[in-house]
Amino acid sequence: MATVIKGLEGVVAAETRLSNVDGLAGELTIAGFPVETLAPRASYEEVLHLLWRDALPTAGQLAELRSKMLPQRTLPPGTLEIIKEAAVARVHPMDALRMGCATLSIGDPAPDDSSFAANLDRAIKLAASFPTIVASFWRLKAGQTPVPPRDDLGHAANYLYMLTGQEPAPAAAGALETYLNTVVDHGLNASTFTARVIVSTQSDMVSAVTGAIGALKGPLHGGAPGPALDMVFEIGRPEKAEAYLKAKLARGERLMGFGHRVYKVRDPRAEVLAQAADALFARTGDRALYELVQAVEKIALRVLEEHKPGRNLQTNVEFYTALLLHGVGLEADIFSSTFAVGRVGGWTAHVLEQQRDNRLIRPASVYIGAFNRQWLPLESRRESAN
Amino acid sequence: MATVIKGLEGVVAAETRLSNVDGLAGELTIAGFPVETLAPRASYEEVLHLLWRDALPTAGQLAELRSKMLPQRTLPPGTLEIIKEAAVARVHPMDALRMGCATLSIGDPAPDDSSFAANLDRAIKLAASFPTIVASFWRLKAGQTPVPPRDDLGHAANYLYMLTGQEPAPAAAGALETYLNTVVDHGLNASTFTARVIVSTQSDMVSAVTGAIGALKGPLHGGAPGPALDMVFEIGRPEKAEAYLKAKLARGERLMGFGHRVYKVRDPRAEVLAQAADALFARTGDRALYELVQAVEKIALRVLEEHKPGRNLQTNVEFYTALLLHGVGLEADIFSSTFAVGRVGGWTAHVLEQQRDNRLIRPASVYIGAFNRQWLPLESRRESAN
Repeated sequence: MATVIKGLEGVVAAETRLSNVDGLAGELTIAGFPVETLAPRASYEEVLHLLWRDALPTAGQLAELRSKMLPQRTLPPGTLEIIKEAAVARVHPMDALRMGCATLSIGDPAPDDSSFAANLDRAIKLAASFPTIVASFWRLKAGQTPVPPRDDLGHAANYLYMLTGQEPAPAAAGALETYLNTVVDHGLNASTFTARVIVSTQSDMVSAVTGAIGALKGPLHGGAPGPALDMVFEIGRPEKAEAYLKAKLARGERLMGFGHRVYKVRDPRAEVLAQAADALFARTGDRALYELVQAVEKIALRVLEEHKPGRNLQTNVEFYTALLLHGVGLEADIFSSTFAVGRVGGWTAHVLEQQRDNRLIRPASVYIGAFNRQWLPLESRRESAN
Repeated sequence: MATVIKGLEGVVAAETRLSNVDGLAGELTIAGFPVETLAPRASYEEVLHLLWRDALPTAGQLAELRSKMLPQRTLPPGTLEIIKEAAVARVHPMDALRMGCATLSIGDPAPDDSSFAANLDRAIKLAASFPTIVASFWRLKAGQTPVPPRDDLGHAANYLYMLTGQEPAPAAAGALETYLNTVVDHGLNASTFTARVIVSTQSDMVSAVTGAIGALKGPLHGGAPGPALDMVFEIGRPEKAEAYLKAKLARGERLMGFGHRVYKVRDPRAEVLAQAADALFARTGDRALYELVQAVEKIALRVLEEHKPGRNLQTNVEFYTALLLHGVGLEADIFSSTFAVGRVGGWTAHVLEQQRDNRLIRPASVYIGAFNRQWLPLESRRESAN
């Protein structure tokens, strides 16, 4: 009987030019750039161009991309309508994003055009509309009116503006932009893989990205930056950290924000986000929280090593994600959707890459059920134990 | 460097009790039953129970399942609203189904309940509402009013009723039911795999099924039963078949409805559907078309063997799908959505199975791009060839 590789762990399912995750060295390369180089310097729009075209844009190319994105920030009426319904029903923010995204093929000028140019336009539409979907849902759920996008603001700043109705401080917009760039792509994670599987049937980009949202929603993928922050707040003061963390581990609980299936050293994204948080909190003045987080991280790593010697559980991206997004002013309920606002750049780029050199992704299963069951007429059946 | 297995061909990614595809023997087992035994005898509701509970229902269990499905045939207002928008925009029927399905978490009484019972209720809601989504969109796109479901009709008959507004002949409803049963599950095909990947992150069933619709939309998966039928109509008379088919092959075109990645002998589903079509056309009186199809199949198999000796291209499920659904009165544009109306039973069952013994499905990719690119300020960049 064939060997089942349940999680497909270690199976190499694709070649990509989009990102490289070196889990042993703790290095993340995004389209040729170390994440530490790219994420703090680039605008999100530059990163989109880099992923979609395999080169940073010239000034002219960047201006062109921005001008194409601006009109796509405004949602089609049907999309806004379903987001209103979702807000009334108080669904999970990722469900609302999935519903909104699923509608984005409405208005496609040429649905059967599978050229690169047509798919690039779809990628632009998806990336440009995600912040509006997330922010509109967020405000509607809170009983507020959606704020229309502002053309004079960049992608990250405009997202914050649509959430709050106020122009964000440059430090906050910059920190959020670094976050979006940091999480834009990360190898063949489950949501990116989902997008590639869907489009490998020669289906369309909206279908692929809608599926990817569904995968990112799962706590085993999109993670739990909210709980990581909750833990820090519960600890409250550095001197309480050790007892709190030891008690949590003694109860058999996991420390949220530590450990990763791929990284065996500190997640390089944690470092980028820690530095961005450092810069942000230096301006906003909330140094106490930043210092508390650093103290908790240090103690948590020591306590984890004592608790599980040799397991080498390291700080992952969630820990500083929580701190950074909190510092930017976001509530924990919107962290996952904000992750999607960043990751859609990677999803769309992987779809374009898959389309360029496609093969149907169709693994096999092994059957472990019965054979040749007897058909019994309805009245002769008895209830089984199942 | 690790070996890339691009299509994951031959990689066994899951164990399942739901179906077994024996491509060499040409045998399909659905939850213990040969497809030839199950598909012509069972109601679709019985097959749902079989897949979800691993046993045919007793009379009492079947009545309970039916009573739970009936109210779920009526769509929530938000779902109907987005289908109206989709109809006005004249999107692809599978896009409309994706949009409608994506909204079905609205109204979930306990979204955080991940028990089997709660997920079974979601499966019931999905399976029960698919025919209404497809039929409502279909009628709205044709400028007609949706027809509300009729509680006294079974799943298959009610689908036809909602499409046409008329109670279908028992032979037509029966033929459609055989079709839905025949395609309900088929190993780890791309859409089923998509559903399992999504739910492996501990995401929810609606997200998983929405993703699966996206994958089924692709012509490499959902196939092209429409074109297979078009070919038969173009041929028109048996004596024209040989010249037509040879000319098509000489132009390097594929014969739609022949060949399958897994089956090296006649797809067993083709046989089940051929028999159902035989019975249906015996009643409706359109024997000429049925005989034409049989003649075309026979000649096509001979011509294919002459054209590609040893390739052993056999009749696949699409060929008789087209004939059967045409005989039932469906237009080619709705074939793919009707496939989804059947396959949703398999998708939901695979989600339940994955949830019972879950592991995150996360393969790896290999990076073939650049490293350590130099960051250049915007004004210093020149346009690259990409």
